[in-house]
Amino acid sequence: MFESWNGARAIEYRRLNGIPDDWGTAVNVQQMVFGNRGDDSGSGVAFSRDEITGAPRPSGDFLGNAQGEDVVSGTRDTSDLEEMAEMLPEPHRQLIEIVESLERHFGDMQDVEFTVEEGTLYMLQTRTAKRPPHAAVRVAADMVEEGLLSREEALSKIDAAKLEALLHPSFDPEFDLDPLARGVPASPGAAKGRIVFAAERAVEQAAEGERVILVRPFTEADDVAGFHAAKGILTSEGGKASHAALVARGMGRPCVCGASALDIDLEAREMRVDGTLLREGDPIAIDGTSGVVSIQDVPLVETEMDRYFQTVLDWSDEFGRLEVRANADRPADAVNARRFGARGVGLCRTEHMFLGDDRQAVMQRMILADDETARRDSLAELEPLQRGDFEGLLAVMAGMPVTIRLLDPPLHEFLPRAEDLAVEIERRVATGGRDEAVERLEGELHRVRQLEETNPMLGTRGCRLGLLFPEVYEMQVRAILAAAVAVREREGSAPELEIMIPLVDYERELVAMRELVERTAAGVVEGLGAEPVPFSVGTMIELPRACLIGDRLAAHADFFSFGTNDLTQTTLGFSRDDSEGRFLTEYLRRKIVSRSPFETIDTDGVGELVRTAVERGRRERSDLALGICGEHGGDPDSIAFFHGAGLDYVSCSPFRVPIARVAAAQAAIAAKV
Amino acid sequence: MFESWNGARAIEYRRLNGIPDDWGTAVNVQQMVFGNRGDDSGSGVAFSRDEITGAPRPSGDFLGNAQGEDVVSGTRDTSDLEEMAEMLPEPHRQLIEIVESLERHFGDMQDVEFTVEEGTLYMLQTRTAKRPPHAAVRVAADMVEEGLLSREEALSKIDAAKLEALLHPSFDPEFDLDPLARGVPASPGAAKGRIVFAAERAVEQAAEGERVILVRPFTEADDVAGFHAAKGILTSEGGKASHAALVARGMGRPCVCGASALDIDLEAREMRVDGTLLREGDPIAIDGTSGVVSIQDVPLVETEMDRYFQTVLDWSDEFGRLEVRANADRPADAVNARRFGARGVGLCRTEHMFLGDDRQAVMQRMILADDETARRDSLAELEPLQRGDFEGLLAVMAGMPVTIRLLDPPLHEFLPRAEDLAVEIERRVATGGRDEAVERLEGELHRVRQLEETNPMLGTRGCRLGLLFPEVYEMQVRAILAAAVAVREREGSAPELEIMIPLVDYERELVAMRELVERTAAGVVEGLGAEPVPFSVGTMIELPRACLIGDRLAAHADFFSFGTNDLTQTTLGFSRDDSEGRFLTEYLRRKIVSRSPFETIDTDGVGELVRTAVERGRRERSDLALGICGEHGGDPDSIAFFHGAGLDYVSCSPFRVPIARVAAAQAAIAAKV
Repeated sequence: MFESWNGARAIEYRRLNGIPDDWGTAVNVQQMVFGNRGDDSGSGVAFSRDEITGAPRPSGDFLGNAQGEDVVSGTRDTSDLEEMAEMLPEPHRQLIEIVESLERHFGDMQDVEFTVEEGTLYMLQTRTAKRPPHAAVRVAADMVEEGLLSREEALSKIDAAKLEALLHPSFDPEFDLDPLARGVPASPGAAKGRIVFAAERAVEQAAEGERVILVRPFTEADDVAGFHAAKGILTSEGGKASHAALVARGMGRPCVCGASALDIDLEAREMRVDGTLLREGDPIAIDGTSGVVSIQDVPLVETEMDRYFQTVLDWSDEFGRLEVRANADRPADAVNARRFGARGVGLCRTEHMFLGDDRQAVMQRMILADDETARRDSLAELEPLQRGDFEGLLAVMAGMPVTIRLLDPPLHEFLPRAEDLAVEIERRVATGGRDEAVERLEGELHRVRQLEETNPMLGTRGCRLGLLFPEVYEMQVRAILAAAVAVREREGSAPELEIMIPLVDYERELVAMRELVERTAAGVVEGLGAEPVPFSVGTMIELPRACLIGDRLAAHADFFSFGTNDLTQTTLGFSRDDSEGRFLTEYLRRKIVSRSPFETIDTDGVGELVRTAVERGRRERSDLALGICGEHGGDPDSIAFFHGAGLDYVSCSPFRVPIARVAAAQAAIAAKV
Repeated sequence: MFESWNGARAIEYRRLNGIPDDWGTAVNVQQMVFGNRGDDSGSGVAFSRDEITGAPRPSGDFLGNAQGEDVVSGTRDTSDLEEMAEMLPEPHRQLIEIVESLERHFGDMQDVEFTVEEGTLYMLQTRTAKRPPHAAVRVAADMVEEGLLSREEALSKIDAAKLEALLHPSFDPEFDLDPLARGVPASPGAAKGRIVFAAERAVEQAAEGERVILVRPFTEADDVAGFHAAKGILTSEGGKASHAALVARGMGRPCVCGASALDIDLEAREMRVDGTLLREGDPIAIDGTSGVVSIQDVPLVETEMDRYFQTVLDWSDEFGRLEVRANADRPADAVNARRFGARGVGLCRTEHMFLGDDRQAVMQRMILADDETARRDSLAELEPLQRGDFEGLLAVMAGMPVTIRLLDPPLHEFLPRAEDLAVEIERRVATGGRDEAVERLEGELHRVRQLEETNPMLGTRGCRLGLLFPEVYEMQVRAILAAAVAVREREGSAPELEIMIPLVDYERELVAMRELVERTAAGVVEGLGAEPVPFSVGTMIELPRACLIGDRLAAHADFFSFGTNDLTQTTLGFSRDDSEGRFLTEYLRRKIVSRSPFETIDTDGVGELVRTAVERGRRERSDLALGICGEHGGDPDSIAFFHGAGLDYVSCSPFRVPIARVAAAQAAIAAKV
């Protein structure tokens, strides 16, 4: 990293040139400076375009009559390249000419090093310049306009993975930042607010209009309401695949994970960071693009999709074959999805609809119910709430496909933890003895234990729930259909409903669930006296076995949606929750893996299974629709793989939709070459 | 089932005929009885051989001059077929002749129904008779001796899965059994002893010479010492794939699981079964072949491998292509393995060596150590113990291959549970306030939490441990090599060592671990100044990804051993601990699956991955040795699959070795036809 050779000076050099700290070694200052034989000497670096705005004029940094050591030691400031025009007009003219010629030759913005000795210009090195994403977009647009590149060439030169940063606010690069701590940059964008250490207080304070940052050692399903309420998330444990990171990225909330310097005391509602004590309510700022945490009042800079970006995205849609959808659970997500150009919702997870104070209590009653009647009573309470959620989502997405996944996670995720209950019981017994409250808690603990699982990821979830508790799926199907009828009446057009069965292993599971969906849907439409609502029924493909029997599943599915998160977990035997921050970190360090398989698809294992399922599924049913809705749907390298595998669409979090659109175009262009 | 039409009478009928209760509907008494027209009439059922001993004379049951209703209502007892010879000599002679002719025709023991009306014999039905396993074996041996069948034909007619019962004691079939409860027949054989509700008390009391039955709601890794000490295991939860069942079958301990009528109170050391209260120390009897639990003093009948069985096994070894090895962790297991004809040890799990009071404490210190030095100190304490274990095992198996798997389970399995610690802390704080002990417990809890995993099955285990904590694997390799050198000196011959790396996903994991093994082994041999000990290094194939990159792994492995238990868990996304007794029960009931995938290999999913790995592995390395060491290694249907897939050997628990030998022969014979 930059700081390893000269911290303070490097940062100042970068600030002078408007280069954010986290770009890495864009410019090697040590190499850059060496000539110094009199007044008509100097050295410097030139970018063939302005490296910040992408504007078509060479710009850069000129050292004049300076020793490299002067820059390194901080005794001499650097100057803009324009000063060179005054000091060394002829070498400057030559430099501009050469740089422009290099740019034409390489078809890309160049970063050149040069020196001037006794009036003679020496070119030392040229290479394709690294640049911030908005500059990359502008360079691409400009170079096409200038006829230097075709649109395909220009698109191919963009680093799609970096584009997400353009959609989020960032720390003002001009600000003199003094980081408090650093963590994993887990979800891009910057946020400021007051510290809260619990999700419920995030919700309370946000309701009062406070901007808050949720700070936790790690997060769990219970905390999701707090993600919505907070402006950003900060954790002391976990990495890019932790719960906090995944949920934050899905929502487009900035998130810094695994800031291990934070010593958090949840009970005392305070944390220590080295010598600094921070209490709940203290202000904090996080930058999820760089992983920096600060207690300064850092100004945030909003970035909008400018016309260059819009141009690039329009081209992308022209060249891309893969359709891009978004994962969206709520109307607000769907609004973002459309704003960023998604062509539908590829994954609506219904479990988030069971969280939140009012709903979780009913959900708990449903799960803890002794019999089916009691369970159905609780479900009847949940049904109108769920219908309302679907109405909101479907209204936003009217006219586009919306894929709704029936309940997937194990039921105990909605219950209190056994350990918390056991400790609570122990406390009450030790202090006040046994009473009715203790007995109630013991009953609850007993039921929680019954549902507890050793490996919940591989337990009673997905369609296994639908087979054990069909009344839950029936309620969900009723809510979906009733919502679709209502939206059609209100908006005049029916959304394209796709109902998705999760975690299928066996053909017979799918047959049973499809029958349940069709029977229940027919009942709703008949009950409402409405025209039939067309819908398709498909399945998640997220287990190795499902891939291998793709042909047999295709006989009963209108579409496959690859759940590559879970497919990665099972194919590799890697628990997402347990691998990052533990052995996966060591694996990356030792280069056993080059990328986290949860970020970029493992083509040799998971990818081969995807290809197998595609081939077998299409063999059985040539019009089978094929998509992917895991985290990989927003990763450019994975998108290139999915293009090659012949999928129809990718679905990713709304904020990654622009990345995916560009990456889909790049994949199509690369495949043609 | 039998009881559904006439419980009491059916049982009596069967007892008269020495037919155990759990054979199912071998004889349909309702069909059997109908003729009744005078003294020279009667009806009955005949087996073409004595159905208990297999001896070559027709035997069976004759009703004489009786109404079917008399039998059903219990007013008339049945008689032996020999009485028919006196009552109806001519029809009896005809019957014997016809039965013998039928036997020749079908080449198998027949179960015929007949009636005699006014002196004329009418044959009503004939079918291949069901028979107890020792009879099946004797029939096979006799029919070959008599020239009725070839050895191949005779072998093919044996139901291999039932043979295990021949190696275990059973309840005396003559005894008038009054069951207390019923559970899942999880590991065959019968046992009697005094109830203990904790593993440590099983160990204590066994040390005092007491025969005990370990009774628990369910069992965990901590309880394994109790399995060794107990004569049998009884649980109120779980099924055939529960921890208790797996460990019991592995050790050949009788086990009844999921006897849900047992209401166990561990603290009070008592249980209620309907109205009956049983306390620790009360006698109990279990039959793991039938699932019956009784508080009667049931006589046990020992069954030995008789000469017929020995003959059948000898033929099996002649025809079988698959070699049969045994899974054995301790010298006693290895002795059983050899006794039952295993050709080596296919899996020695080293983790059991870290359990037991003295070792677990050292193991815990090792895991809780703050730094590598402290960890190495604890490992140094464990090394001589582990070396001793290996010496014992290798000495028994001298001259045969022994596959030793390096440490596999996640480290937190050796630690106390977080919940127990949290409750203990709460109790101490609530009653006595905070003191040093509480602080020590809190420190321990903190470390346990650090190691705690959401899905331990998919967490930091297998070779991931070896990469994170190489000193653990190094200690194990040193212990193995030193033991081999010692055994070679003592016994004169070196065991064929095979060192196995578990849970490999990536080629580089295997390369790193192979390097560790070879480097460490060379160090040991050099240190001892001994001749080199030859050994091979291979890998478990137990993750879908490993199957798919079989070719690349084969480049660095001398052998593959398929761990089909874990491969089933990952391919299907089924946690063994969480599926049985939960959704899998419902899946079996609804026929979504026909057999538990943990008992019989799922050929469409897991099987296809095995075939893929075999094909790719052998393509890279034609002399790659291929085996399987999961539970499926003792299941006849799975063995047929492994034969077809081209494996070299199967490894199963010692008590299943005879089954596997017969099944391997049957597979080879069936493949030739």
